[in-house]
Amino acid sequence: MYTSETFVRVRYSETDQMGYVYYGNYAMYYEVGRVESLRQLGLTYKELEGMGVMMPVLENKSKYHQAALYDDHLKIVTTILTKPSVRICFNYSIYNASGILIHEGETLLAFVDKITGKPCRPPKVFMDVLMPYFN
Amino acid sequence: MYTSETFVRVRYSETDQMGYVYYGNYAMYYEVGRVESLRQLGLTYKELEGMGVMMPVLENKSKYHQAALYDDHLKIVTTILTKPSVRICFNYSIYNASGILIHEGETLLAFVDKITGKPCRPPKVFMDVLMPYFN
Amino acid sequence: MYTSETFVRVRYSETDQMGYVYYGNYAMYYEVGRVESLRQLGLTYKELEGMGVMMPVLENKSKYHQAALYDDHLKIVTTILTKPSVRICFNYSIYNASGILIHEGETLLAFVDKITGKPCRPPKVFMDVLMPYFN
Amino acid sequence: MYTSETFVRVRYSETDQMGYVYYGNYAMYYEVGRVESLRQLGLTYKELEGMGVMMPVLENKSKYHQAALYDDHLKIVTTILTKPSVRICFNYSIYNASGILIHEGETLLAFVDKITGKPCRPPKVFMDVLMPYFN
Repeated sequence: MYTSETFVRVRYSETDQMGYVYYGNYAMYYEVGRVESLRQLGLTYKELEGMGVMMPVLENKSKYHQAALYDDHLKIVTTILTKPSVRICFNYSIYNASGILIHEGETLLAFVDKITGKPCRPPKVFMDVLMPYFN
Repeated sequence: MYTSETFVRVRYSETDQMGYVYYGNYAMYYEVGRVESLRQLGLTYKELEGMGVMMPVLENKSKYHQAALYDDHLKIVTTILTKPSVRICFNYSIYNASGILIHEGETLLAFVDKITGKPCRPPKVFMDVLMPYFN
Repeated sequence: MYTSETFVRVRYSETDQMGYVYYGNYAMYYEVGRVESLRQLGLTYKELEGMGVMMPVLENKSKYHQAALYDDHLKIVTTILTKPSVRICFNYSIYNASGILIHEGETLLAFVDKITGKPCRPPKVFMDVLMPYFN
Repeated sequence: MYTSETFVRVRYSETDQMGYVYYGNYAMYYEVGRVESLRQLGLTYKELEGMGVMMPVLENKSKYHQAALYDDHLKIVTTILTKPSVRICFNYSIYNASGILIHEGETLLAFVDKITGKPCRPPKVFMDVLMPYFN
């Protein structure tokens, strides 16, 4: 498996009148988790798109244990548990500054050829950087 | 069970550079589905908050069958399958203008007392309007 | 001049913890105003993009007179005061359900050729529907 | 005057199908600029709200010189040009990673007492940290 950490600071725009982070905004935090976990491997999602590969989301699951609040400095732990094929699954655990696990999520994405719009294998460079974590 | 329909028009702000509705924005469509399904029963979520009850989200699940596109006129079918207790579950089926089911979602929410922050029963007025659908 | 009206219902996602519509979300309401004002002329912004013309924003100004609140049913009055050339300016007046003017905005957009990325004239069909309002 | 720098990485959620940052999302970047400029003075906007003071936006102006793109690492230079009174004005200059000025903005905010909802003076602690910059 491959796991990595990144941080986000909750923005005012991300709160709602309940005083919590709006439940739909966690998907954005997952995106930051995914993108930064790849960047830490020396790969950017931007480059993947440049290679003609998009990664649309197929499924998403979220568990809200405790609310994230304005200005919280959240730690996002992003994990790829199983070796990617034409699909890839990311798991997220989000912790607040007190180290409490406040949220868990899971996203299944496909690799899709930008031109044909059809599912495809992940680019070689993608598999090359990830393979060492899946022996 | 109780089921209702409402419509949203996809905004430019809701798309991303893939040319699709950003995957995190469906949660917002679910919210519109929930709020309008209650309004059709003569009840507004705003009034519920006015009665001192909040409804934070506990769990959310999404399946992305096909992308929603800019300016699409989407039909959101919102369904409550089981009688609410201290929790309530909403299911959503989203159809594009061609009548194709493009997305499914499910959200579990709690009833929480705004002052104590503790789980509570749904307000009587809430159960009164829904009960006829759960005999 | 050309003027038109459309309505939006404030979503929970659009509020912030101040209990108001987040100040950045009015730009989205302007977009709804623009898009629906064109649609009322029989033209969609989607079609314009289909013709190879994009309309990026050059300038935006906003005056916040009074806060919009959750579930408010807002009237957006969108006005084109002067005949468009390679640029077009939209003005917005937003009223709450009590008829109070709560917000004013102004957006200057360019017509840009999608392929060359360079400024261009508005498509003929665009000018054809608008010209009757600028004699 | 007081000036400070902070950085944001453009999220996928912040782009639109034009492939640019959606024009309404710059307001969010301004917010990051404001909040981090205060934090660099040892003060958080969260604390200000804790002291019973809110800072709603009265006016906002934006000039879009060049589009910000997905994954861009943007530098936000936030400046307070004049000594705050019951109002405070922030200016923003946003640069892309090539050092090009791509965007300018200006936001006028009020200090408002959370309980009375009326304009008020900025809290003493706020003026204490800023005064050294306005002699």
